[in-house]
This record gives sequence, C-alpha cells and structure tokens, in this order.
Amino acid sequence: MTDGIEDFGLSCGSLPAGALNAITDVAGVRVGHVTLRDGDINTGVTAILPHGGNLFRSKVRAASEVINGFGKTVGLVQLDELGTIETPLLLTNTLSVGTCATALIREAIRQNPDIGRRTGTVNPLVAECNDGPLNDIQALAINEAHALAAIEAASEGPVEQGSVGAGTGMTCFGFKGGIGTVSRRIRLDGRDHHVGALVLSNFGRAGDLVLPDGRRPDPRRATEAESGSVIIVLATDVPLEHRQLKRVARRAGAGIARLGAFWGHGSGDIAIAFSIADPVDHDEKRGLVQTQVLNESRIDLLFQAAAEATQEAVLNSLLASPAFKGRGGAHRPSLADWLRANV
Amino acid sequence: MTDGIEDFGLSCGSLPAGALNAITDVAGVRVGHVTLRDGDINTGVTAILPHGGNLFRSKVRAASEVINGFGKTVGLVQLDELGTIETPLLLTNTLSVGTCATALIREAIRQNPDIGRRTGTVNPLVAECNDGPLNDIQALAINEAHALAAIEAASEGPVEQGSVGAGTGMTCFGFKGGIGTVSRRIRLDGRDHHVGALVLSNFGRAGDLVLPDGRRPDPRRATEAESGSVIIVLATDVPLEHRQLKRVARRAGAGIARLGAFWGHGSGDIAIAFSIADPVDHDEKRGLVQTQVLNESRIDLLFQAAAEATQEAVLNSLLASPAFKGRGGAHRPSLADWLRANV
Amino acid sequence: MTDGIEDFGLSCGSLPAGALNAITDVAGVRVGHVTLRDGDINTGVTAILPHGGNLFRSKVRAASEVINGFGKTVGLVQLDELGTIETPLLLTNTLSVGTCATALIREAIRQNPDIGRRTGTVNPLVAECNDGPLNDIQALAINEAHALAAIEAASEGPVEQGSVGAGTGMTCFGFKGGIGTVSRRIRLDGRDHHVGALVLSNFGRAGDLVLPDGRRPDPRRATEAESGSVIIVLATDVPLEHRQLKRVARRAGAGIARLGAFWGHGSGDIAIAFSIADPVDHDEKRGLVQTQVLNESRIDLLFQAAAEATQEAVLNSLLASPAFKGRGGAHRPSLADWLRANV
Amino acid sequence: MTDGIEDFGLSCGSLPAGALNAITDVAGVRVGHVTLRDGDINTGVTAILPHGGNLFRSKVRAASEVINGFGKTVGLVQLDELGTIETPLLLTNTLSVGTCATALIREAIRQNPDIGRRTGTVNPLVAECNDGPLNDIQALAINEAHALAAIEAASEGPVEQGSVGAGTGMTCFGFKGGIGTVSRRIRLDGRDHHVGALVLSNFGRAGDLVLPDGRRPDPRRATEAESGSVIIVLATDVPLEHRQLKRVARRAGAGIARLGAFWGHGSGDIAIAFSIADPVDHDEKRGLVQTQVLNESRIDLLFQAAAEATQEAVLNSLLASPAFKGRGGAHRPSLADWLRANV
Repeated sequence: MTDGIEDFGLSCGSLPAGALNAITDVAGVRVGHVTLRDGDINTGVTAILPHGGNLFRSKVRAASEVINGFGKTVGLVQLDELGTIETPLLLTNTLSVGTCATALIREAIRQNPDIGRRTGTVNPLVAECNDGPLNDIQALAINEAHALAAIEAASEGPVEQGSVGAGTGMTCFGFKGGIGTVSRRIRLDGRDHHVGALVLSNFGRAGDLVLPDGRRPDPRRATEAESGSVIIVLATDVPLEHRQLKRVARRAGAGIARLGAFWGHGSGDIAIAFSIADPVDHDEKRGLVQTQVLNESRIDLLFQAAAEATQEAVLNSLLASPAFKGRGGAHRPSLADWLRANV
Repeated sequence: MTDGIEDFGLSCGSLPAGALNAITDVAGVRVGHVTLRDGDINTGVTAILPHGGNLFRSKVRAASEVINGFGKTVGLVQLDELGTIETPLLLTNTLSVGTCATALIREAIRQNPDIGRRTGTVNPLVAECNDGPLNDIQALAINEAHALAAIEAASEGPVEQGSVGAGTGMTCFGFKGGIGTVSRRIRLDGRDHHVGALVLSNFGRAGDLVLPDGRRPDPRRATEAESGSVIIVLATDVPLEHRQLKRVARRAGAGIARLGAFWGHGSGDIAIAFSIADPVDHDEKRGLVQTQVLNESRIDLLFQAAAEATQEAVLNSLLASPAFKGRGGAHRPSLADWLRANV
Repeated sequence: MTDGIEDFGLSCGSLPAGALNAITDVAGVRVGHVTLRDGDINTGVTAILPHGGNLFRSKVRAASEVINGFGKTVGLVQLDELGTIETPLLLTNTLSVGTCATALIREAIRQNPDIGRRTGTVNPLVAECNDGPLNDIQALAINEAHALAAIEAASEGPVEQGSVGAGTGMTCFGFKGGIGTVSRRIRLDGRDHHVGALVLSNFGRAGDLVLPDGRRPDPRRATEAESGSVIIVLATDVPLEHRQLKRVARRAGAGIARLGAFWGHGSGDIAIAFSIADPVDHDEKRGLVQTQVLNESRIDLLFQAAAEATQEAVLNSLLASPAFKGRGGAHRPSLADWLRANV
Repeated sequence: MTDGIEDFGLSCGSLPAGALNAITDVAGVRVGHVTLRDGDINTGVTAILPHGGNLFRSKVRAASEVINGFGKTVGLVQLDELGTIETPLLLTNTLSVGTCATALIREAIRQNPDIGRRTGTVNPLVAECNDGPLNDIQALAINEAHALAAIEAASEGPVEQGSVGAGTGMTCFGFKGGIGTVSRRIRLDGRDHHVGALVLSNFGRAGDLVLPDGRRPDPRRATEAESGSVIIVLATDVPLEHRQLKRVARRAGAGIARLGAFWGHGSGDIAIAFSIADPVDHDEKRGLVQTQVLNESRIDLLFQAAAEATQEAVLNSLLASPAFKGRGGAHRPSLADWLRANV
C-alpha cells in the first residue's frame, strides 16, 4: 500500500474516508487493471464495474459532465439521454478507444445474445487520456484481449494506484501521474453512505500544481501547455436521479481547479458519476417504478465529497507513482520524491 | 365552447383526448386569464397553476426545452438546475415579463413570509410572446394587479381559448393566434393518465401553415419573417424525473414543426413540462425520499402525446380566434373562416 | 439515377435544388460507399469528406445537435468543444463504430505522423444506425479495410442513394430506408450558396409516415416502436460560426418531425452540420484570424433549407430503395412501389 | 483606493494586471453604482456597460456559463441563442430583477423607438445575489429610477469596490463581500489585450475560504450552507466567437473553486463573458460580415486570465469591504481586518 496524502501531512477537506479510502468502498464496485510496459510501450486499460452482475440487464443510473471537451470519450451521448451505464467503464489511451469499445460490444453480446436481435443495441463506455509523451501511442498496442483482461481482473477491495492500467504512461503537472482513488463517508437518515472517486490523471502544466497547504511543487520542466486530460469517475450508493448525478459530476471540476488547473484547452476533462442504488432493469415490465431520490437540500454533502475526493484522488495518483522513464527515455519525476526532499 | 379541429374534419394523431380536451384534464391544474382590450391595447396575462395550494411549499417537478431561444422567458435557469416550479407560471407580452416577475415575487412573499428571511428566495416563472403588431406593447399596459388577477381567476374546468389573456394580441402563420389547449389520455399499469398542453401561439410565417391533411391555408398576407414566438406548457400526472420531463418537453418542437414551422430565427419557442405527481416539499426533513418514475421504455407514449397535443393545441388557438382588428387597424383573419370557405 | 420526389408529384418546401440535388453540390464535398451484401450480412460504410485534402491539417467548422440521444455516435464531445471536424465522417452500423474509429485514427496517423508525437491526438467521427433487423449485426462484419475503402471511394459528383453503404440494411417507417441526399440553393450578397443534406434513414414507426401532401403510406406491418435512428449530415459553403452551425443542425429535427416522427425513445437522431468556408489551419501561427460569419438576420434561409432538405433527403432514401429481403428473410417494401400503386 | 491583494502579500497567478487593475481596463467598458443604505435597507444596483453607445444598435458578442443555477438571472436564454448583449448588464438583489428588467426595457425603448414596432423586442440582462441576511430584501427597495441612475453613473476609469452598488449587502465566506474587480494584460500578435473581471460576491461557507498561500481565514461564525450566489462578469477586447466566449466564461468557475467553494447547492453562480471587438450591428445589411476570431490554440491565455482574475476579484471584493452592520444588527467581519491581525 502506497503512502496517502496524510503521510505527507496534507489533507483535502473535512469529510472522513471510507475503510479502504478507495472507490471500492462503494459496495460492489470493482476495479481491474491491465498494464503494458515493454520498451516504448507504456500504456494499459483500467476497468471499473459498477457491480459484479450483468450490467446490460441491470443498468446503473449515471450522468456525465464535460468539464473541457478536448477528448474522445465514447458513450456519453446515450449515457446522458437515458441516464444509465450498461457496460463496464474502460479507461485507456486516446487512440485505443475504438478497440476498447469493440471489446465491450463483443463481451455484451456474449452475455446477452438478444442484443441487436430481439432487443436494442448496447452503448459501450470508454474514456481516455493521451499518454503519447511516455508511450508509443501510434503503436495502438491495446487489443481487445487486453480490454477483456482488465474486466476479468476487476475485483472489490484495495485498488492499485499510480503507474498501472490506463495510468501507466500518464503525466500530471509535470510529475508522473496515473490512477488514484479515494472515498468519503457521509451520513443520511442515520445511515452511512459513501462517495468514491477514481481518477486517471494526465493534466496540468508543469509548475501550476498547488498543494492543499499552498506550496507549489516544481518538477523542473519547462512550462508547457496544459494538455493530456483527466478522467474522474465518481461512484456512490446514495440514490440520485440523473439531474442530481450531473450536478455531482460537475463538482469534480472544482476538485481539479483547486489543484491549480484551469481546465486547459488541450485537456479532455470528463467526469462520470453513477449511483449503485435502484438499478434500472432492462426487462422492466411495470409502467411506473418505485425509486428513491436524495432530498435536494442535502446535496451539498455530495458536492463537498465530490470536490474533495477528486482533489485527493489526483494527489494520490501522483504520490503512488514513482519516477518514471518512458518512450525515448522521457523522464517524469515523482511528487512523493519532491515532498520527501521538501519537508 | 368553440369548435375544435374535429369539427373541421381534422385530426392530430391517434391518442384519445381527455374529458375536457384541455390542460385542466390533468387533475388540479388551473388556468386563469386577464384580458386588456382598449383601443391600441390588446394584451393580457394567462396564469397556469400546477395545483391549487402553496406552490412554494409544494413544488412540482418540471423541465424546460429551449426550442429556439430568441425569447425573454424568466426563471428557466433555476427551473432546470433544481427541476421544480415554485410559483404560478404567467404568460404575457414580451415587455411585461419584469412586471409579472415582480408580481409573482410579491405574492410568494405574502404567502410565505419566510422568503428571503429564514429560507431562500423564490424563482418566478414568466414566459412571453411579442404582440407588438396588434398591441401597443411600448405602453407596458400590464401592471402587477393584472398579473395577480389572472392568478386569482385561475380555475379548474374548461379553459377559454383564442384571443384571451396573453393570447389577446397574438398572430400565428398570418392568422389570428392566441391561447389553445388540448389533452391526451394514456394508460399505464391499467390506470388512466393524462398529458395536457396549453400554448400561446404567435409564430409561423404567413403561408407556411400545413394542416394535418396537407392543405396550406393562405391568409393573403405578404410573406414575412417567422417571428413572435410560441410558448408550450405541458402538464401530466405521470411521475417523471427531470431528465424525462426534458425529453417530453423537447417533443413540443415536433408538434410545432409538423405545422410547417422551422423554429424561425426571430421566434422564441419555449416548452415547459411539469408533473403533478410526487411534489417536492420545501420543508422536507428526510434525507432520502420515495418517488416514482416512468419505466423509460414506455416514454414513447408521452412523446407521442406531447407532439400531437402541441400540434392540436396550436390549431385550437387559431380556430378559437375570430378575425381581429388590432393596433392601428392591423387586421388578422381567422383560420376558422378560411376553413369554412374552403370545405 | 433514381426517381426523386418530384417524379411522384411531391415537393418539400420552396427553395430550389442545386445542380445535382445532392450534398456534393457543396463544392469539394465527397461521398463514398462500401456495401456488404452476402446472405444475412447486409451492411456497409458511407464516408463523407468535407474536402479532398488533409482534414487534420485543414479542419472544417462544425457543430452537432443531438435530437434524441439513444445513439452511439463517436466524436461529438470534441466536435462541439472545438467546433471542428478533423477526419472524414463515417456512417455505419451501431456495433461497428469502434472499428471505424480505429480505422480513422490509423489513417490520420498515416497522413500525419506527428499525431500523438509532436502534436495532439485526433478525434475520429463516426455515426451509426442499428441495421440489426435486416443485417446480422452481431457478426461485426465491418473491418478497418472496409472503412478505408469507403474513404478511398469518395468522390464529387452524383451520390448513389438507397440500399447502399451504411444504408444497406436500414428500415424507415416500415419501408426500406437507407441513404438519401438533396441540396438547396440560396442567395447571399448576390452570390449563390448551397446547403446539402445526406441522411442515413432508419427511424419511424410503420404507419406514422406523412407525405408532404398529407397521405400516410401503409407498409402493412404491425405498429412497432420508433427505433433505429437517423443521422443527418448538413454541409454548406456559407461561412457560419459554431453557434450558427448548431442552430442550423437543430433544424434537421424539424424536417424529421414533418415526416410524422416524434424522435422516438429508441431512436438515435443526430445531426451534424459543417461549413467548408474558412477552414481552420491546424498549424495556424497568427493569434487572431480573419473569418466571415453570416449576418444572423439572414439565418432563416439556412433554417428553411435545413428543414426542407432533411425532409426531402429522407424521402429520397426511401424512394431510391427497392423492396428488400434481409436477415432471416425479413422483408421491407419500397415506398416507390406504394406510390406507384396509389397514384 | 483600497488595498489590493498584493498589499497583503498575496497573489493570484502570474499574468500582469492592466493599468487600473479593473474591468475598465478593457477600453470603453463603464461601471456605475447606486447604493441604498438606510436602516435595514442595504442594497443597490451596479451597471456594467460594454460601451458608451447605443447597445441595442451595436450589440457586443457574449456568452454565459451557469456554474450552478440556483439563481434568477434574466436574459440568458436569448444571450446564448444569439450570442449578443444588447442592454447594459444590471446587478442587484434577487427580488429586484423584475424591476431592473423593466427599467432596461423602458430605457431601450426611449433610445430606440422602433422596438416592438418596426423591429423586434429587446432582451434585458439582469443578474442577482440574495442580500437577505443583511438587507430587508422583502421591501423591494430598488425602483426603476435606481436602475437608471446606476446606468447614468457608469463611467470609465477606476471602479469603486466593496460594499457599494449591488454589493452593499453581500456576504462571502462569512466575511463582508460585495463588488470586486481586476484585470489581466495578455499579448497577441505583438499587441496588448486585456481581460477584465467584475464580481458580485455573496457565496461560500464560513470557514471554507482558502487564501492563495493556503491559509484559511476564520470569520468566527457557525458553519452554514453555501448559499447566496456569485456573479462574474468577464470583459475582453480579444475577438472571440460565442463558443470561445463560453469556454472563457466557464473558467470563472475554476477561480471560484480555488477559493475553497464547491459551487454550493443554494448558490446561483453565473458567469457572463463579452468581447468588445467586432460588435454586431442591429441594422446590418450585408449577408456576410468580416470578423476576427482568436486562434484556438492561444485560448489558454484567456482561460488562465479568467480563472486568475475571478479569484483575485473575489478577494478584492472582500478586502475592499470594511466590517458591516446590516439588517437587525447582523454583523459581518472584514477579511482585511483578519489579514492585518494575522500577519
């Protein structure tokens, strides 16, 4: 287990973390990675499964927020029209979204032979960041088998962070970025609920990072454009309707901004929020369905959790990533090293 | 009671109408008009109350769709963020939106003395069309008392249509337009439900109107720009979440298009849809609230109802309006006269 | 050359057509098809190239409108953030979007070896309809070579319509649908300009189709849900900024509605509009760039053209499609046959 | 002249300020205030004029971003459809938006007697925050004369900040808030350009404020909900199309988030951005109009300016506001006092 921000004396907000401080604190959520590291190939796939069952049959309610749309995410049009996710969510490099989408389609057909026959089609969900500076992205190294392997590897419990899965070749504020995750515990009607975040961090100009204590770590690289993107996945067990999920997803942008980013032109900053409560049955027969929604006047709890969790998850993605040598010898320092050297 | 489209051998779609064929077929919905006709003054206010109680305390779920935004509707920002309506909805002429908004604010404070003191503020909802060609709109003839009188006049039961209330000075496809209303009855889980529409029609180029049978009535006026706007209010007792209400509201645009309009540049075409089911308690204390939503796979019933009802409500607004002489003697023929002359 | 709507005594609106009455009346626009017909395989790819050069280097200004988002179009997030198209636009079946996206990426890299190395990544653009009722869509029969072949086949001049390319296995209002195209000629500042439309028609419930003369052709099939989608591509040589292109794209929905559709729940109805005027140089060095925009008060010309062209292009897609036997012997009648039998 | 953030050893980012460090560094922009302080009445109006001429005749290009829509701004529907501002922008308290809208309408008619007669209607633009905690907002103390007086008071040059105009009764992070303004100077094609910001600050939970150096000033008030709103007006002389202006407006949210806010549920956080370059002539006769747009690859300069300027303008609004006693003796401390006591 890598050090978290508290091991460096940092904190993001005031809400407590869940038991694992990971998106998997939301019951049933699973995460799996496939990592490719071979010479100039430094990339991978990360799969997030809202639950362990058949997602096409039992969809989860979801919404997305395009913070900055210089990105190639696949699946958002239908996600926001219908308010559901019906496949695993795959994260990968920018040029592999097509391959991952096809893998999700093939896997959904395998599990649901009625797709495109006696029922409708399936909406694959794939998000990406550009790992070109550290990975030979033109090689299109990810194939469908990698995508399926990430799904098969998905499990509950602790989540590996840093330069793993889709995070393998990512850069963030000039430091080595990648996968980070946290959770927040909130109370409603006397019961515990969770908000979890998992980020794929690949954004931020070198020199722009601001720590929660106001310090500005310097990766000693020339200032360059904010590009590369960040994907933020928010999960919760609080029942939320689409409009509420979209409001929550939007707050991921606040977490990013607190780190010093301004959602740069070349950065595809996308947040996707889903709730595992009250899944939507593909074969529902009733005309009207009972469900629950959050009393809107309590939603600040989720907004705060989303902003704090996003901020901390990005920091975790940095802290969990050791210094890295990528394509053509390109080097990325580790934020953890900087913090140890600047106590 | 004026003739409806069936009296002229026309029909819009296949769904049956409710008992009144009016928005008031949705139980509890109330409509009231105040009409000003005095020389060059030909204008008014129409109030739509989703229910007869305190709307600020018991809000109804709602969404809007801006079909074409050359319009000055007040209140849509909050309506779509929070998904609720918390005042009566007032329709009036374009330059009177400010006055009507202030009237709604004052009335909400009278009923809820905690507004702006121990609770938040109130979001007034006012929509408009430009009746300038038939009304001395620069006179700003509507005052706060008129707005309140329309609210007080609101009642369940049959709705007066045509050149009444906000519809007094409106023009549609070169004919006299105004207020029109219809309803559709749909069945879900073995129970009857309703979708009602009320329109304020003031759009469409002369000569562009297409009747359901393909005929193109000619008001014998020179072709002019499509301008002036149309407001479509859709009410239902089917429980719908915000995203679903927005999808339904959007279908009002299909109803408008079927009449031959293309949502002209100068036309403020706005649809507002609300559901009286599961109102939102301003003082809700629970964190999670039970509610119902429509099984999405049945929503085509509401889409069809929304499109058909909008189309027919516009035709009703035309048929209920006799030939009219307005500001400076400007004349508008009646579609009913054209139909009687062109059997 | 197949018969157009005028050969059947029909017309959509009043604007004149261009020389070819095809999207290729917009100078430089190219269209190419690859058609797969082999037993239960009835599908294909259609490529639309805004110009014949390197689209990544010389992007065209564009916008999209999601009329109903039950669809899997790839590339819209970035298209609307940046307002440009930078690859050919491919149309295909729903489950082949991933493969077509990968083909576009590979081709863009081939032409621009700096992608993902010394410049950013590329945003592939793929739209789709579900041809599952007539095609063994689970076979994923489209491969990258088919996608490239459609691009290579693209040419100026007349466009093949009906059951060709992506249109091979499509169904529309219970009749055989597919590819349709038209154009409109408009005048600005004393010069001719064009608006072209190309549709992939796969929407509409059997029995809902309304002809411009009010007739309702009956394909003699049981009423079924409106599903399957329609993609509308609008091209113009009028210089338009993103906001204007989005307004124009939205009017495609009016054209669809005039045909009797209400943008059904299960239908992915997506419009994409682009202008070939003032392309955006990927390597632009100046900070400020001279461009032209349309005087907004003339935009009704484009709205009317977009609505009329969409309506007629769908009718063309039907008229150009002979009766068809697809997967498992499923039969689709031809609208042209119905019209010949119902003079 | 009040102290700025640099007088307290603080800074927001790296871009230089303009000569006045005010929105009026954008040439021609004018600001005027009317302040009402009388017992429990603590409110006012602030007018922002993009230029000194007839705004209805010569509109400025604009866009808005609804960061969180718990707000009652008037005029955004048309602003974003047409991409222009055509009246002064008035800021005031929440319940006075109707009155201010009517004042703008009457003034526009006075200047343009063709409104609603021989040309279309006018779209008034009014934004608001809720000053109820310090002002007897139920009194509706603002009348049309106040609104006009703010417009008449508008001038180029230094801008009064703090508890003035619409800012009179505002609260921000538990401290006294109000009006704040700054500017940033950027270079394009060898010439200086400016981005100016003016905020009306009334948001943020007490205790949540984070200074640029990481400190968290404590106003010694119980934590309460983030409510009350913030309006951010961004002006520039860089030519930007609507899409670009909307992207720039969105970055105001980043500036707000950096201060510790998460765009609370009850906060109406609205940004409006306009460019004084290439105004739109209401009476334009040409079909196509020459204009300039920013090379998109330079837009990070404006994003950074918008985020930094918003952050600093809020701090200025706090620093310029002395401790305040409002309605019923409610007290708000001054951030400047806290900073002087916590060097």
